[in-house]
Amino acid sequence: MAGDGVKLLGMWASPFVLRIKLALKLKGIEYEYIEEDLVNKSERLLKYNPIHKKVPVLLHGDKPLIESLIILEYIDETWKENYPLLPEDPYERAMARFWAKYTDEKLWLSIVGAFSKTGEEQMKTLNEAQESLKPLEELLKGKRFFGGETICYLDIVIGWIAVLVPLFEELMGVTYVDPNTMPLLHAWSQEFTNVPLVKERLPPREKMVVFLTAFREGLISSSIKFP
Amino acid sequence: MAGDGVKLLGMWASPFVLRIKLALKLKGIEYEYIEEDLVNKSERLLKYNPIHKKVPVLLHGDKPLIESLIILEYIDETWKENYPLLPEDPYERAMARFWAKYTDEKLWLSIVGAFSKTGEEQMKTLNEAQESLKPLEELLKGKRFFGGETICYLDIVIGWIAVLVPLFEELMGVTYVDPNTMPLLHAWSQEFTNVPLVKERLPPREKMVVFLTAFREGLISSSIKFP
Repeated sequence: MAGDGVKLLGMWASPFVLRIKLALKLKGIEYEYIEEDLVNKSERLLKYNPIHKKVPVLLHGDKPLIESLIILEYIDETWKENYPLLPEDPYERAMARFWAKYTDEKLWLSIVGAFSKTGEEQMKTLNEAQESLKPLEELLKGKRFFGGETICYLDIVIGWIAVLVPLFEELMGVTYVDPNTMPLLHAWSQEFTNVPLVKERLPPREKMVVFLTAFREGLISSSIKFP
Repeated sequence: MAGDGVKLLGMWASPFVLRIKLALKLKGIEYEYIEEDLVNKSERLLKYNPIHKKVPVLLHGDKPLIESLIILEYIDETWKENYPLLPEDPYERAMARFWAKYTDEKLWLSIVGAFSKTGEEQMKTLNEAQESLKPLEELLKGKRFFGGETICYLDIVIGWIAVLVPLFEELMGVTYVDPNTMPLLHAWSQEFTNVPLVKERLPPREKMVVFLTAFREGLISSSIKFP
């Protein structure tokens, strides 16, 4: 399907950009991908996202869209007839949006929070992250994916946990998702990253390890506060 | 229109609860309002919002909905044929959602941030809040309300600024929205609170002054950090 001039400004390691790549692929939308240098931000990025200066930015013709969750809804509403991302029922839609917000706020802060700490502080935040992950285990009861038999909006949104957490675990020498206490989430994480459409779009593992090691150094030594 | 067992768990001073009251009124949905005591949280609140334990909670039959922006979308999608809250066009919907998120994150932190500080720190945060308000002035160009000629989703979402900021200004002796530099936002703020449907639902002024004075004392003396 022709994408009517669709461009995606992204950054290879960003799990938020990956969301948009997956949604566009599921919808069968062709697009041009433009890699942005987030250290030396381009005129283009500053023009299209002057407020947050972040990726992803989706350009549809000359219209810029920002914030990955908002872009996902835009894609779903614009190319309605293709693979539906959000459920149809208003209550199920509200629940999907609730867990998306929960994932981007509470889970992001606690999971990346533990990654940014060492020693006793790390253990404390890690426990919080494990507690915060439990509702996801509940959500998966009786289901293969958050979307049911196939991946949908919520799988795409929660996908960063499947991509980043195993790498965090390796770099930190800890366990966020214990296969004994969270077997469904653990299995989902592996299934999700093995869906061919997802697997083909994952950032290269070796390069991610280098990136995340440096990112963690930055977090630990900076004054950025994670609760 | 019968509300099919709609209940709203709220708290009289909450601008987030006010959003839901306005949306239900615009849609013509009858509902039962239940005031919650947020200091001694009820079994009911803990049952329906175990994760955040906050209001508003909308009960539709036995289905609980939480997070005011998500509730607004649910109301709009469930009672579609009544007064539409969000625009129809996907790009305009995305923009409305973007500014809603901006309002709840960046503007809330900077506006309540300044309210929680004193002296030099207050002035610094106040300047940030004023800068963050400027895009709203741009959005209002050529329009009476954010929704155009009548109030819509974005007016309801940004409404807390019209309700709280004049009271913050009075209590702090400062100006957030200068009528000379932000004439459109200043006029909107007055127009919005004078729309009869809004005016009838505003919390009593005297009671709000007492509440906000105490709330501010709490913010200043607590360790809650606002940037």
